[in-house]
Amino acid sequence: MYQLNVPSRILMGPGPSDVHPRVLQAMAAPMIGHMDPAFMKIMDEVMRLLRYVFETENELTVAMSGTGSSGMETVFVNLLDPGDKVIVGVNGLFGQRLVDVIERCGAEAVQIKAAWGDIIKPEQVEAELKNHPDAKFVALVHAETSTGALQPLEEIAEIVHNHDALLIVDAVTSLGGVPVKIDKVGIDACYSGTQKCLSAPPGLAPVTFSKGALEVMDKKKEKVQSWYLDLSMIRNYWGGERAYHHTAPISMNYALYEALKLIEEEGLENTFARHKKLGKALQNGLEAMGLELHVKEEYRLPQLTAVRVPEGVNEASVRKQLLDNFSIEIGSGLDELKGKVWRIGLMGHSCNPKNVITVLSALEQILVNEGAKVETGVAVKAAMDYMYKENVLVG
Amino acid sequence: MYQLNVPSRILMGPGPSDVHPRVLQAMAAPMIGHMDPAFMKIMDEVMRLLRYVFETENELTVAMSGTGSSGMETVFVNLLDPGDKVIVGVNGLFGQRLVDVIERCGAEAVQIKAAWGDIIKPEQVEAELKNHPDAKFVALVHAETSTGALQPLEEIAEIVHNHDALLIVDAVTSLGGVPVKIDKVGIDACYSGTQKCLSAPPGLAPVTFSKGALEVMDKKKEKVQSWYLDLSMIRNYWGGERAYHHTAPISMNYALYEALKLIEEEGLENTFARHKKLGKALQNGLEAMGLELHVKEEYRLPQLTAVRVPEGVNEASVRKQLLDNFSIEIGSGLDELKGKVWRIGLMGHSCNPKNVITVLSALEQILVNEGAKVETGVAVKAAMDYMYKENVLVG
Repeated sequence: MYQLNVPSRILMGPGPSDVHPRVLQAMAAPMIGHMDPAFMKIMDEVMRLLRYVFETENELTVAMSGTGSSGMETVFVNLLDPGDKVIVGVNGLFGQRLVDVIERCGAEAVQIKAAWGDIIKPEQVEAELKNHPDAKFVALVHAETSTGALQPLEEIAEIVHNHDALLIVDAVTSLGGVPVKIDKVGIDACYSGTQKCLSAPPGLAPVTFSKGALEVMDKKKEKVQSWYLDLSMIRNYWGGERAYHHTAPISMNYALYEALKLIEEEGLENTFARHKKLGKALQNGLEAMGLELHVKEEYRLPQLTAVRVPEGVNEASVRKQLLDNFSIEIGSGLDELKGKVWRIGLMGHSCNPKNVITVLSALEQILVNEGAKVETGVAVKAAMDYMYKENVLVG
Repeated sequence: MYQLNVPSRILMGPGPSDVHPRVLQAMAAPMIGHMDPAFMKIMDEVMRLLRYVFETENELTVAMSGTGSSGMETVFVNLLDPGDKVIVGVNGLFGQRLVDVIERCGAEAVQIKAAWGDIIKPEQVEAELKNHPDAKFVALVHAETSTGALQPLEEIAEIVHNHDALLIVDAVTSLGGVPVKIDKVGIDACYSGTQKCLSAPPGLAPVTFSKGALEVMDKKKEKVQSWYLDLSMIRNYWGGERAYHHTAPISMNYALYEALKLIEEEGLENTFARHKKLGKALQNGLEAMGLELHVKEEYRLPQLTAVRVPEGVNEASVRKQLLDNFSIEIGSGLDELKGKVWRIGLMGHSCNPKNVITVLSALEQILVNEGAKVETGVAVKAAMDYMYKENVLVG
């Protein structure tokens, strides 16, 4: 008979990432009620720590009771009225998803397109804001999980605010891996997930809203179309009168607390440095092997690298061998990158030197067995040299 | 500095209920990916076991990635088009919530009202179906968590189907505590939560849909207004091609698997018998103390009992003393029952003889201290006599 049988994996895909034993242990803490004063204290700490990783003083900074995609939906159903116009950057799957979610709100999505792996340029945003002076929002994906590209935001934020619009940012894969800096950049609404660089299990969606976003929310004409994600009620549970809305996922909040606490203990800047250096070490190793990276160096995320599948190689077979023979999970390409790239994650607790070394060694061996033309015996050395130089060997 | 500090409670409110150590332990199992073949096996088992507790052969029987309220929303956003008419029973807070969710779908809710604590009568449903021959759905709450009333369904199901409508049932508090019997009763769409009689942590919403409901879903004109809850995509992740939709809450599914497995090991009929007998034992004890139960005996739920607060007693102070001095959580009254009742749960793993004895003893002592007129020294005996007679002392 089947018994809960969970293999021990090395999670190097696009999330979930490995979860620290302290976080797993936190989830096994006893159940308490969602109105228990002891749980209110945990919620307060989760809010404080989320503000720390978002780098914001936004009061409305909470964890929604669903995975990252529910965070995306939360932002739009609470801000948009039917007929509203949103300028959206589409340069990967999650940009496409933004369009879908916006349209399901009865709003209009004006798309700015760029190639998958490229970024959205400030001048493109400025041009569309001039073409659509009635656009109230600009929405961009900070770290495109489908391509591994990092979208620069500061210049765009200034343009958006000069046009009296609000900036909405998808930080699902960026939060905790690269700086998001809500207040400094001037992001008005932002959502993330717990299972990427925060390294908690999937199941919650951190969100944060600026004062400008709260004003829009308060002026919204129609009732929020989702009861479950209606922040006008949920705000009163996370703050204010602590009014019951729905039963919060208690254990998931224990986990998020502990995962955020680990980041606080390491220090946010140290967390970013670890991701940056180990991401670069991995990328050096992959390039030394002769593999091509999908994203230009200047826009490359450290925590998620899209590598092109060498010609003639069966991408699914390589992933299967990594999983079956090494228990390493990496991600496939999605949609128009399906079959063309692998996505290798180094997120949160997964982001450590031994994982860099292991995945490079395993991938090299499998590619050689598959008859691919790769340089052998140099990948790990290239990564190792960089790790020595940057002094990130202990992690 | 604050550290994750979780007190050990006895959870006897309207949910969450106590979680079995095996379930807590399951959540601490290592993280794996949402596309991992090992996770697909867990999903298959979760589906099999959900069909077992729902007593259904419905293929589309899955756990939505949100708490019970997201299950409510899932059913309506996937079935309703704007302008559709739903006849809704409103005899408590969750009936009211149904109306709210239906209206947010742009549909019309025709309300059948009954007093809080009463039930909806078959003849009321029949009359409204005649008044509104264009009504496609009838929606009822099986176990009203705000009142403790159990809604009989069989006769109503027949009436609904005779009028070619579909029956939608809220089984958040009933599933696993009293028989729901989807197929035998003829329920077309049903949702529940994990933190009541299933005794898993909150965070997932089991849902199930009949063939008739699937036909309606397939004919739906408008795109589902919630991307996150869109079953036309989620179906392909839980079955079929296993296409990625969103990252499932992995650890929560471990927990649900283990919690359902415990029910399977006990046997569903034994689980129901335990709830029935211990619920009655508690109710006998409360009545022996001289307290008045809010719901008539014939419609009383075993797993959730609403007790009227004796005149002159401060209901919040009693709950606070139970929590502070005995670490027992019970629920307050909501909305129109606010300040008027306590709600005492005996759900899932919380439903055992020692909790019956403890809560009766503690409540009696506190009420005496508060100067309430209660019979002393008889409540535990009344409960105990019944437990001996029914042979449910070991649990």
